[in-house]
Amino acid sequence: MNAEPDSVTAAILVIGDEILSGRTKDKNIGTIADYLTAAGIDLREVRIVPDEAEMIVEAINALRARYTYLFTTGGIGPTHDDITADCVAQAFGVEIDVDERARAMLLERHKPEDLNEARLRMARIPFGADLIANPISKAPGFRIGNVMVMAGVPAIMQVMLDAVGPTLRGGAAMQSVTVEAKGVPEGTYAGDLGAIAKRYDTVSIGSYPMMTPEGFRNRIVARARDPEALAAAVAEIEALVARLTA
Amino acid sequence: MNAEPDSVTAAILVIGDEILSGRTKDKNIGTIADYLTAAGIDLREVRIVPDEAEMIVEAINALRARYTYLFTTGGIGPTHDDITADCVAQAFGVEIDVDERARAMLLERHKPEDLNEARLRMARIPFGADLIANPISKAPGFRIGNVMVMAGVPAIMQVMLDAVGPTLRGGAAMQSVTVEAKGVPEGTYAGDLGAIAKRYDTVSIGSYPMMTPEGFRNRIVARARDPEALAAAVAEIEALVARLTA
Repeated sequence: MNAEPDSVTAAILVIGDEILSGRTKDKNIGTIADYLTAAGIDLREVRIVPDEAEMIVEAINALRARYTYLFTTGGIGPTHDDITADCVAQAFGVEIDVDERARAMLLERHKPEDLNEARLRMARIPFGADLIANPISKAPGFRIGNVMVMAGVPAIMQVMLDAVGPTLRGGAAMQSVTVEAKGVPEGTYAGDLGAIAKRYDTVSIGSYPMMTPEGFRNRIVARARDPEALAAAVAEIEALVARLTA
Repeated sequence: MNAEPDSVTAAILVIGDEILSGRTKDKNIGTIADYLTAAGIDLREVRIVPDEAEMIVEAINALRARYTYLFTTGGIGPTHDDITADCVAQAFGVEIDVDERARAMLLERHKPEDLNEARLRMARIPFGADLIANPISKAPGFRIGNVMVMAGVPAIMQVMLDAVGPTLRGGAAMQSVTVEAKGVPEGTYAGDLGAIAKRYDTVSIGSYPMMTPEGFRNRIVARARDPEALAAAVAEIEALVARLTA
């Protein structure tokens, strides 16, 4: 199923060497994916890139042009490898400097004499951006155009997502129904399932094998924005499974 | 730190609507990342795309041109939404058909009368590819050119990675040393750490905040292929932390 022309779409850009080296296992992709699905926004693509300006800028520009929204995570701390804000400014062709609103937020946590050059990096915001509050450690994220720039630490990313999420335009929520294949092997129902998928072109139908101690236990998931089409497709899938388990 | 000209690089392409919807949380990226790091191969980029031919083909061609190796996961089962093999063939401009070696593998698990059209989809292999054995459920992955096509089910992906991994050209293994920042805030050491990173341009130095019940506990990780440069940089980082905790 292709994205419908009126659907609201999104991409995620995860920034950080630590994810690519395997040292840190990403948790943010799954969190954002769940959030967007519930909001009726189609997550269409994810990229993970290292802390390198050229790759970050290229990915920002490719993804923000292609989708309704782009969410980035990571690279907005105080250290030399935190270059996301500069890359966003470069991608948009705007200036970046210490933002007084962001400085005020940092002063809620740090004494003025502790607000050294490194910490002030966290207040550097591209011109024209709106801040995204961070109740946990105060250093804000920001939104510029259709790009939401968030922290990489999962707990902070979560509060930023909660803050910015309600400002986004949602689509009709995607509804999904899962049909348990009850031990019927994928290869047994694949032909008939493909025929059903072909008939219901507004319903996205997937088959997902899972290994369990009892062998493969497959699930068939049907997803659609149109409840009637969804119900009709699910009825056919259930009839198929019933026929094969009779 | 940019990838050195003689380094061996890789990308991962995760294929599947179920990851983008959040229904399934990916585990393969972290597994492959760990494996590549241990083998001295630099994972440089990851993309996740839906089960749509145009996006899959575009990503395969972008990534295989840019990196030494490309690993794909997902989309090689028997159902209609399993289109990875066809997309790989299209990306390489080669034909695809049932491969007799792959059919023989499937016959180890399925009776000939059960090898229906859907199951035979799993034996469709692009011309010129080498098979990657799958001891668990028999349906093979394959390698064509610099692209390794593997299953999405994590246990099967793992055995395929174990099978194909030893055939890859590894680089000098990246070594890493972690220095505990012992509660020193990132903003306190960021300036000096950045100066160290600038002096050691063959050493990749990152600072990673982690939230714990006791507040932020940061880790500084230095990574390099050159053990002498790594040791020298680590000595400076340790001296910096010692100075700040004295």
